[in-house]
Amino acid sequence: MNKIAIIPGDGIGKEVMDAALHVLDSIGLKFDYKFGEAGDEYFEKYGIALPKETIDLVKSSDACLFGAAGETAADVIVRLRQVMNLFANLRPVKSYPNTNSLFDNLDFMIVRENTEGIYVGQEEFIEDGAVAKRIISRKASERIINYAFNYAMENNRFKVTCVHKANVLKKTDGLFKETFYNIAEKYPKIDKEDFYVDATAMYLLTRPESFDVIVTTNLFGDILSDEGAGLVGGLGLIPSANIGEDAGLFEPVHGSAPDIAGKGIANPIAMILSAGMMLDYLGLNTEAHKIDLAIQEVLKEGKVLTRDLGGNSSTMDLANEVIDKYNEI
Amino acid sequence: MNKIAIIPGDGIGKEVMDAALHVLDSIGLKFDYKFGEAGDEYFEKYGIALPKETIDLVKSSDACLFGAAGETAADVIVRLRQVMNLFANLRPVKSYPNTNSLFDNLDFMIVRENTEGIYVGQEEFIEDGAVAKRIISRKASERIINYAFNYAMENNRFKVTCVHKANVLKKTDGLFKETFYNIAEKYPKIDKEDFYVDATAMYLLTRPESFDVIVTTNLFGDILSDEGAGLVGGLGLIPSANIGEDAGLFEPVHGSAPDIAGKGIANPIAMILSAGMMLDYLGLNTEAHKIDLAIQEVLKEGKVLTRDLGGNSSTMDLANEVIDKYNEI
Ligand SMILES: CC(C)[C@H](C(=O)O)[C@@H](O)C(=O)O
Ligand SMILES: CC(C)[C@H](C(=O)O)[C@@H](O)C(=O)O
Repeated sequence: MNKIAIIPGDGIGKEVMDAALHVLDSIGLKFDYKFGEAGDEYFEKYGIALPKETIDLVKSSDACLFGAAGETAADVIVRLRQVMNLFANLRPVKSYPNTNSLFDNLDFMIVRENTEGIYVGQEEFIEDGAVAKRIISRKASERIINYAFNYAMENNRFKVTCVHKANVLKKTDGLFKETFYNIAEKYPKIDKEDFYVDATAMYLLTRPESFDVIVTTNLFGDILSDEGAGLVGGLGLIPSANIGEDAGLFEPVHGSAPDIAGKGIANPIAMILSAGMMLDYLGLNTEAHKIDLAIQEVLKEGKVLTRDLGGNSSTMDLANEVIDKYNEI
Repeated sequence: MNKIAIIPGDGIGKEVMDAALHVLDSIGLKFDYKFGEAGDEYFEKYGIALPKETIDLVKSSDACLFGAAGETAADVIVRLRQVMNLFANLRPVKSYPNTNSLFDNLDFMIVRENTEGIYVGQEEFIEDGAVAKRIISRKASERIINYAFNYAMENNRFKVTCVHKANVLKKTDGLFKETFYNIAEKYPKIDKEDFYVDATAMYLLTRPESFDVIVTTNLFGDILSDEGAGLVGGLGLIPSANIGEDAGLFEPVHGSAPDIAGKGIANPIAMILSAGMMLDYLGLNTEAHKIDLAIQEVLKEGKVLTRDLGGNSSTMDLANEVIDKYNEI
């Protein structure tokens, strides 16, 4: 039985995690769950946000489900990504029925480099200010770009778009762009193109249907994937996968939402879809696909929806509805 | 008579500049125009993109109108911003009638720090990669944040939003955020709030009407203003102002568009609105306002439009139509 590390974290993280685990249980999937702690609450009690036991737990598990962290998110999730070497952050942009999606039929994947760039934590104060380093290594660039092309091959995608700012960042992003075109030669069947990050931020609105797989550096992936979330109606629906050589961590893109925490009204879909991405990672592709279909069905019907989706139902009601639809497929 | 430096630059830069100067002439505004060269074409001939004479010309003028530069844009415009100390980049996001704007009635201003951040050009190759420095100084942060609050006061704006990534960039953006709240105290009449850049990229789509004035660092302003352009239908309509202590440079946000250059079909509105921003800067506020109204009228009527706006008219036809409407006001 696969051992899964469960880190509910803070705020609605706990509630949506309960809902997701309930879905997995109810559709007959058994895992060996081990719970770990991290986040604001843990920090308040013990003065650190991510204890070593939790890191060890994730290291010794086959995969990890992560809920949300509050103010300490950067110290928890960025650190987990780095210590676990979870180099690829996958963020789907997909429109679901009956949401506030600005466009129908969007379906592309943002592949974000997850270990370096401006996230390396090399910052210092200088006279009258501060300076941060943005590191782009050839190794990490090759790794993420190869990942993106392989992802495209395996998922019947036809194009990979490299996003950078090589006109200003001539060395760092020049390297990233050059690496992209070098690697692209190994994949003659996949179309390739590159855009500046600012132009991409516009194209996501003026021609979003032209994107298929986007590969980019850490911060640009952070910004563009939230823009992508806005495109398809907000963060309530966006899952993500953090993938390493032999580790995977799955989390909703949304945060701990302290304003609605504890009320049982949070939308669990992003967390359930994150669990779906974990199933895919573990080879349970049929089940993953069925979860996605069940969620589409729930949304299409529009009877059981949380408030952010215009309904009145609770987190658990929505989870139960997903289970019902799953069982009907 | 005000001396104005004119840098048409490359591609459609020349065409939209002709159109904008034609508008200024025809509405009876006389300036002492001095033409300067910069951009790809100049680079191909002389091996540099921005000659010293052009910098001197801009320095000795009361204001500068800039068209567009091609591949050399970073070497031209980023350098001009820095050597002229044009620290504030103003980028309006405003919906005009009959465009592809995703929302009606948007009207907010992005105030982008224009001299430092990741644009300082401090990059070097390291073993197996490259590193870029992102510098945030207290002085430049104070200057731009003060500018944003003063802008809000003078333009009847009610709120300033600070955009940063202080959860990851604790020192650089921590400083920016702290400076923001310190300065905000001097402006008790103006509301203040701060968001992470990724969240902002989403909020621009999920609640764009909540923004009024956004103040942010260089690269975030670059990305968010292009997203803002996408929000209101694309770059064809977006002007910008680069403002220093005693200098102003005005340019459309779009580039040189080599694919349509030389055909006389480019949309001149962003350039004409940039000229309008220059008139405002020179104290010709009535004329600036009338240009904006004339453009609204042209778009509302929808008879004379360039191709990007769904019409068939030429660059000069559209400019002439703006002049006609201006004269009717
Ligand atoms: C919480 C924050 C540090 C994190 C990031 O910037 O990566 C989040 O925005 C995300 O995208 O997962
Ligand atoms: C051409 C490029 C260097 C420039 C920038 O990044 O500032 C452009 O995108 C802009 O926004 O004016």
